[in-house]
Amino acid sequence: MAVLVVGSVALDSVRTPFGERREVLGGSATYFSVAASFFTPVKLVAVVGEDFADEHRRLLTERGIDLSGLQAAPGRTFRWKGEYGYDLNVARTLRTELNVFAGFRPSLPEHYRDCEYVFLANIDPELQREVLEQVRSPRLVACDTMDFWIAGKRESLLRTIRRVDILLINDAEARQLSGESSLVRAAQTIRALGPKALVVKRGEYGAMLFSESSVFAAPAYPLEAPVDPTGAGDSFAGGFIGHLASARDLSEKAMRRAIIFGSVMASFDVEDFSLGRLVRLSREEIHERYRAFSNLTQFEAIPEDAS
Amino acid sequence: MAVLVVGSVALDSVRTPFGERREVLGGSATYFSVAASFFTPVKLVAVVGEDFADEHRRLLTERGIDLSGLQAAPGRTFRWKGEYGYDLNVARTLRTELNVFAGFRPSLPEHYRDCEYVFLANIDPELQREVLEQVRSPRLVACDTMDFWIAGKRESLLRTIRRVDILLINDAEARQLSGESSLVRAAQTIRALGPKALVVKRGEYGAMLFSESSVFAAPAYPLEAPVDPTGAGDSFAGGFIGHLASARDLSEKAMRRAIIFGSVMASFDVEDFSLGRLVRLSREEIHERYRAFSNLTQFEAIPEDAS
Repeated sequence: MAVLVVGSVALDSVRTPFGERREVLGGSATYFSVAASFFTPVKLVAVVGEDFADEHRRLLTERGIDLSGLQAAPGRTFRWKGEYGYDLNVARTLRTELNVFAGFRPSLPEHYRDCEYVFLANIDPELQREVLEQVRSPRLVACDTMDFWIAGKRESLLRTIRRVDILLINDAEARQLSGESSLVRAAQTIRALGPKALVVKRGEYGAMLFSESSVFAAPAYPLEAPVDPTGAGDSFAGGFIGHLASARDLSEKAMRRAIIFGSVMASFDVEDFSLGRLVRLSREEIHERYRAFSNLTQFEAIPEDAS
Repeated sequence: MAVLVVGSVALDSVRTPFGERREVLGGSATYFSVAASFFTPVKLVAVVGEDFADEHRRLLTERGIDLSGLQAAPGRTFRWKGEYGYDLNVARTLRTELNVFAGFRPSLPEHYRDCEYVFLANIDPELQREVLEQVRSPRLVACDTMDFWIAGKRESLLRTIRRVDILLINDAEARQLSGESSLVRAAQTIRALGPKALVVKRGEYGAMLFSESSVFAAPAYPLEAPVDPTGAGDSFAGGFIGHLASARDLSEKAMRRAIIFGSVMASFDVEDFSLGRLVRLSREEIHERYRAFSNLTQFEAIPEDAS
């Protein structure tokens, strides 16, 4: 089952304690697409400027990603500049240039409209709805957002969220959106807004899934030498939705497996700048790390003679 | 197998967004002892002042805790005053009064000296060693410490750590002690200082165990209404060491079970002020929450047809 994603394609300039890169390929839809492409076909909706290099386009098409929904507009590609300290959990945005994104109106190619799996990456909630309205009968709609929209476009965001099956946000955003300090209560509040499930991304602390009847917690993979966390959340979403679409299964068990596949993809993303590690990945490496997650989290049931 | 613990017995004044308590029973040795007492007999070493109420002593003896190593000294009991915001992970210390702890020299009753399981709770590393020297042939020595000693008594702390089998500290302390930002590298560095295993406590994010051949990650139990995290780390240590001593098993499997029992005890501690929740606990509730941890973390092995 193909996945449709709308979000940003960007040129990122990033500095971390482990190095620096200028104007490298980035953006939420890019990370999502490449991560998801290991699981299922991907159709991308976004906009780039005249300065978008062919090599970037080639990187995406070589992963089998359908770019017929990638508009090329006059002007410059969206740019983000940011840095991280030793606490890689906290990004500091130095500059955001919307450029061609400022006037973006998503228009889906006809063959995109039957996609059943849709990921609305972090963009203006109004654009998210515009895309959703062009999809004929989505089976699963998942959505990301950020503090900027929660604070500045709350009503519009709530209208989008009402139509979403799974919301994927970080813990600070879950607290901000719900007004609750306890994540358990935040999840109850957010699920009452529409989504059947809430996925809370916690960076180096892992991820949690709050669904109707249960809570699932997965750690992040402990990396010896993380390099750049940019795109980790979108790589997570790519592995998560990619697995669900591929398995065509939305059961609790499939959702939990999907959380692990998401964590696997996020862990690889962090090992290099830009898409550096993701494009070098093999399916065997993905499966090996999934098994490493089993080893990382496994413990025995309560012993009979426990005292 | 009995566990010997040395640490503080305190009167705490605590404010959280959910309420306030003045001069209630607290201290690292207290929380550890009560939590461990659900698993194994406990012998406590500490000092209190003349103002230490009989009801506190009674609470401990009713849990079967041996207080013959609890000295009563002229003066006032150790006091701590602190507060937490909605982010319960961060304590702000408002005042520390050492009082009788300033002149404390631990002296172990004869029948304490054959204890094989020893927990050196967070006190001056010199006092930790003084206790250790009085124990004849410890089988397992575990130790906690804090930023204050890492920064101010580093050499003395390293001498203690050299004799310790398991170090239990939080993630900021692990980074501070090792000078490494990656926890994986921090664990390698710290294990080279002596301890065979490192347990990293991460508050609401759970705990990790770094041992010779593997890494284990456990989430914290997601609580709907956490009240006061004071003592969570020591309650964790009580469940952890308590289970190891009770099982008389130091295998990797036992250590992982112990991490879960530690997480269980920490989660109960946080549900009320002071020892409020721990003293009301039943063994059945402990086992029930252990099973809840299994549900919280369980996921399937990689599916054969994963794609």
